[in-house]
Amino acid sequence: MNPSNMKNTNLYALILAGGVGSRFWPFSRELEPKQFMKIFGERSLLQDTIKRLQGIVNPKQVYIISNKSYFYEIKRQVEKFHILEGNIILEPEGKNTAPAIGLCARLIGRINPEAMLIVLPSDHCIKDVRKFRSCLLKAVKCALEGYLVTLGIRPREPALGYGYIKTLADRHKVTRSQGYYRVEKFLEKPSLEKAKKYAAGKNYFWNSGMFIWKADVFMAELKRYLPKLYSQLLSIESKDTIGKAWPQINSISVDYGIMERSQKIALVPADFDWTDLGSWDAVNDILPKDKKGNVIHADSMDLSSERICVFSRSNRLISTIGLKDLIIADTPDALLVCDRHRAQEVKKIVENLKSLNRKEHIMHLTDKRPWGSYTVLQIGGGFKIKLVEIAPGKRLSLQRHSKRAEHWVVVCGLARVTCGNTVKLVKSNESIYIPKGTKHRLENPASGKLQIVEVQTGNYLEEDDIERFEDDFNR
Amino acid sequence: MNPSNMKNTNLYALILAGGVGSRFWPFSRELEPKQFMKIFGERSLLQDTIKRLQGIVNPKQVYIISNKSYFYEIKRQVEKFHILEGNIILEPEGKNTAPAIGLCARLIGRINPEAMLIVLPSDHCIKDVRKFRSCLLKAVKCALEGYLVTLGIRPREPALGYGYIKTLADRHKVTRSQGYYRVEKFLEKPSLEKAKKYAAGKNYFWNSGMFIWKADVFMAELKRYLPKLYSQLLSIESKDTIGKAWPQINSISVDYGIMERSQKIALVPADFDWTDLGSWDAVNDILPKDKKGNVIHADSMDLSSERICVFSRSNRLISTIGLKDLIIADTPDALLVCDRHRAQEVKKIVENLKSLNRKEHIMHLTDKRPWGSYTVLQIGGGFKIKLVEIAPGKRLSLQRHSKRAEHWVVVCGLARVTCGNTVKLVKSNESIYIPKGTKHRLENPASGKLQIVEVQTGNYLEEDDIERFEDDFNR
Repeated sequence: MNPSNMKNTNLYALILAGGVGSRFWPFSRELEPKQFMKIFGERSLLQDTIKRLQGIVNPKQVYIISNKSYFYEIKRQVEKFHILEGNIILEPEGKNTAPAIGLCARLIGRINPEAMLIVLPSDHCIKDVRKFRSCLLKAVKCALEGYLVTLGIRPREPALGYGYIKTLADRHKVTRSQGYYRVEKFLEKPSLEKAKKYAAGKNYFWNSGMFIWKADVFMAELKRYLPKLYSQLLSIESKDTIGKAWPQINSISVDYGIMERSQKIALVPADFDWTDLGSWDAVNDILPKDKKGNVIHADSMDLSSERICVFSRSNRLISTIGLKDLIIADTPDALLVCDRHRAQEVKKIVENLKSLNRKEHIMHLTDKRPWGSYTVLQIGGGFKIKLVEIAPGKRLSLQRHSKRAEHWVVVCGLARVTCGNTVKLVKSNESIYIPKGTKHRLENPASGKLQIVEVQTGNYLEEDDIERFEDDFNR
Repeated sequence: MNPSNMKNTNLYALILAGGVGSRFWPFSRELEPKQFMKIFGERSLLQDTIKRLQGIVNPKQVYIISNKSYFYEIKRQVEKFHILEGNIILEPEGKNTAPAIGLCARLIGRINPEAMLIVLPSDHCIKDVRKFRSCLLKAVKCALEGYLVTLGIRPREPALGYGYIKTLADRHKVTRSQGYYRVEKFLEKPSLEKAKKYAAGKNYFWNSGMFIWKADVFMAELKRYLPKLYSQLLSIESKDTIGKAWPQINSISVDYGIMERSQKIALVPADFDWTDLGSWDAVNDILPKDKKGNVIHADSMDLSSERICVFSRSNRLISTIGLKDLIIADTPDALLVCDRHRAQEVKKIVENLKSLNRKEHIMHLTDKRPWGSYTVLQIGGGFKIKLVEIAPGKRLSLQRHSKRAEHWVVVCGLARVTCGNTVKLVKSNESIYIPKGTKHRLENPASGKLQIVEVQTGNYLEEDDIERFEDDFNR
């Protein structure tokens, strides 16, 4: 089979989008991880990943596997790429990469036994899309020969943050002429000493986490090396039965479970630019800088700083004086100021927040919901103020709060409000009161934006004071 | 006369509180300068200045001169010290120190021709109050002999930010035994070279700006060296006639106008600790530090930073990783991150803001008003959300807006609301609507706190859309 005419037939992409990468905190949060963030402009990393596949993989054959709590965000983000809602596969909980990839290989293999899978993380940055595509096609060729193909990155420096792959020395290579290597072994994240050795050697590569293989070849290797997982996956006939099998499945990475053991591994060198956006520092490497080496994505005012990165998701003015080699990331509820050589440690801050039972690592003050979003503007003694935006045609659940009343002032658009037994239209500059304990529903019946200011009053104002009676989103 | 029994008779204090010091931005703003800021805990710098005088000067003889736009803030801050409202002298506009001090010498001199003035800036930090007081009494003794006494600070380092005073060499000193020196000359802020020479010399002092003199001696020197100002001040009979004379008066500092020329200058060495809070860096010198030399006054989380200062007026979490020698000052609408050796340059940021016609140097998002305060929570297209607090017993003006309607939700306390021809009480968890163009008034008739959420709607939402009909504060 010739890869060039596979485009619309057997070629499938599987994008892994379940990560909760915490090193982009405070921009990334548990409920809004980095793959959904727009770091480089108009598109998120997930969207960039999808866009890179255009012209290679039919959008109907692009699958995304993720955590169920990200479903509506993914749906929103992939809409414009014509990816089918049915292609979003949801894990009830994260079980690492082997079960996730295995599940999709199983489901896609049932649809098309000849399926060829391109497995891609959703948080990489690759600028040279042309080279990326031609490299993929090379890898597909290799995978057609029955190999599990991994794309290897030539080390640019003795990085400590990556696993390495050692290929067989030249004399053992099988098909150099076709552009791929056989693999000798996978190596864990190294010490600095080892990393230096690896980076200097010709037959070491960074493990990119991008894989290409036939679904049936992968399943056969699963059967050999992870037979229990294999049989668990066989019990899954469709998306509907994932929930039943999943709790019994053990977490294991595809590197550890398959790649380090299989005898069918081949490596295709990635000859395109590639960055694993592992931390804020990586962003700094990628974005264009001013004359002083600064990357400023904020309303800012600087006096003679050098090599600083300023990112903002707030409206605040950020003024900087005489700084060097710093990362500043500002959000409405949390600020990070970090030596850029220590950006890896952001992860520790997130761990500390977790152990202190704080909230700043979980979600932003603006929380996205399937029907729109809300932003907490102020929390005071006995009251909470939110700005709520409801997307055109969307509505919240029919709900009731037992401990709070709500005052709604429509500031933009038109609302259809159910309050007890009445339904009425509330226009901009009108308000309505929802007494405590009254069933109510808020809807945007129009085609324009609806914004309301919600003033909650009561002694308990947490999100869990909600009883849902009907919901368009099955919550 | 013996200073110890002067306490309640001729001894007056004059606190200069008109400065708009911009080097504490973003905490200080044009409408909220540093003398009103609480940097060290419960009291502002102004309040600390007043408190240091307790037991020395009768509160009824403590005067404060400032800009008229600070009147209500000063009134609020001095209330608990039993300073008379009549003792707050307001300049229609700042004319530097000679007219300000002259005005008060004139007014106080008319009340008590024997008055002895202690002139103090309102933004100094002095911890050893006992030594400060005994130094003041020493200075009073000297001033009783007819001198204009200045308190001189022994240089701790070759500072560039102060003016210096050179005293006469030992053989010329008149009254060393009594603890004071005659002054040879005043020296402007020096170059580093000169500062080093001064700091090494025994007869150089920093000019602290604290003065002690008899009102009549000062007026006589004014008559001699600034005769025009003298006669302009004579035309002022009481506070009521300041406004008439003031516009014609020229700006001039007391250092330049009097101290550098008078032959009657004496210097009393200040043997107490003293810091002129000229910039954020000075605060760092004063406040207690943790083991790593950090001063953290914020909700913060740090990983191994050293010698950083973190100050916050926001609710935001401030996380810091591996920083050194930085100042971070965070407010809801502006953040400063600054090399602490360059804290002087904050002034330049403020100048830039001014020239760009921005607002972050003028006022905080929380704006203090004579009746309480308000905080802007959100500005959107066609709406603005404020949290408004009205002090017990206080009320806003009877007013009208021509371009906006207002929705008020009472979230704490009880409001008396005038809306058109009706007056009604609005309780917590109730709301009321003020249509565009309707006269209205908001009052807190109770003894507790009143908080309302105000949602403004309209196409023009600036503060200048207000027509006032009655106002308790003569605005």
